[in-house]
Amino acid sequence: MTKVLRLHYAPDNASLIVRLALEELGLPYECQLVDRRKAAQKSAAYLQLNPNGTIPVLETPDGPLFETAAILLWLADQNAALAPQPGSAQRGVFLTWLFWCSNTLHADLRQYFYPEKIIGPEETHQDQLRRVLQSRLHQHLGMIDTALVRTPGLTDEADPTLLDLYLPCLLRWTKLYANRGPKPWFDLTSYPALHALCHRAEGRASTKAAQTAEGLGPTPFTAPTFATPPEGSAT
Amino acid sequence: MTKVLRLHYAPDNASLIVRLALEELGLPYECQLVDRRKAAQKSAAYLQLNPNGTIPVLETPDGPLFETAAILLWLADQNAALAPQPGSAQRGVFLTWLFWCSNTLHADLRQYFYPEKIIGPEETHQDQLRRVLQSRLHQHLGMIDTALVRTPGLTDEADPTLLDLYLPCLLRWTKLYANRGPKPWFDLTSYPALHALCHRAEGRASTKAAQTAEGLGPTPFTAPTFATPPEGSAT
Repeated sequence: MTKVLRLHYAPDNASLIVRLALEELGLPYECQLVDRRKAAQKSAAYLQLNPNGTIPVLETPDGPLFETAAILLWLADQNAALAPQPGSAQRGVFLTWLFWCSNTLHADLRQYFYPEKIIGPEETHQDQLRRVLQSRLHQHLGMIDTALVRTPGLTDEADPTLLDLYLPCLLRWTKLYANRGPKPWFDLTSYPALHALCHRAEGRASTKAAQTAEGLGPTPFTAPTFATPPEGSAT
Repeated sequence: MTKVLRLHYAPDNASLIVRLALEELGLPYECQLVDRRKAAQKSAAYLQLNPNGTIPVLETPDGPLFETAAILLWLADQNAALAPQPGSAQRGVFLTWLFWCSNTLHADLRQYFYPEKIIGPEETHQDQLRRVLQSRLHQHLGMIDTALVRTPGLTDEADPTLLDLYLPCLLRWTKLYANRGPKPWFDLTSYPALHALCHRAEGRASTKAAQTAEGLGPTPFTAPTFATPPEGSAT
């Protein structure tokens, strides 16, 4: 078992969110590229770490962890940072929206990105799935935008939380995928709280570090372009 | 804001999992039926508590909480029970599988139960979605069955964890829905660790309390039948 933290990552994959948390916490960590062009995330060695074959894995002294939000929460709790701590009055509502980001917003986005995984190879099926998901995603984004305004403790300009790291990445990918087809459907400025969150995120040192490591370009959250990473590939 | 815990529930809905946790912890709580026959989960009053319109909500002194797994984890942390606590060596792996249950197994099951929410009203689309989901669910169940055997701390016979409560409910619903059509496809005994988990769960006092409150029948996890609740309806 590793004594240091080792992040198994691919550029501009969900591992980016964990990288931002590691950077915010100032923790030393090693990076291990998962070569998606060789489908390394489906190799026997990788499946030993994460039987789902999803990216990321964080190897820790307590064993390999996966599931992005689980890793985020574990890092926050271990370091008493990036989240209202257990026992605080804001903890319950924070957990509510962290799980929601994972099982609703992020889960729907994954299906939008990889429709074949849930509906199979036929284009007409995939088009129908994407149509429904587009409408769901608009609802989700409106909901979290409102929640951010109404709910103290979810995000914090001076003292960022996990949601200050998680949401900008999800919005980056929403924009890149939503606006790839003939009819772009996502405009970040329609969601003022989310827009402000992305703008703030671009000023943080953790973002700068990730931009360099993964080739994310100058405005990775407010006006993203596809990554041009120094190693590996996003897909 | 409520001073007591108030569970907004519908019989045999995800609120069942939260009820089991409240019973295991021996916490006093009130129940508020959400009348699904009147679509009360979409009423303005309910959406104030949970804008997603999903069941359950747990009203707490810290505000209304939703997302089943978030409520479970909050209850576990508040009461230092039902989960490896923050700082313990088993916490990270436990969080990994708790999030996985929420965003992978539970999320796929919801789509299997309510395909129209993700693919729209056409039957051919829904049939295709269910075909893919059936294959995904087999993979998921095989994966968690293996994980339970290999990973200490996920479940515990003497001192049950959240997964000892969460998984039997998900398996109950898998069985009820998988075997409703012309070609039943789920056999719990194919998954020895999950089968043992369900069997153990049926011996617990928390299960007895839930059986009475929600009309779950004599073997709610190993050989479930549709609920015949004293009030309300499951759908």
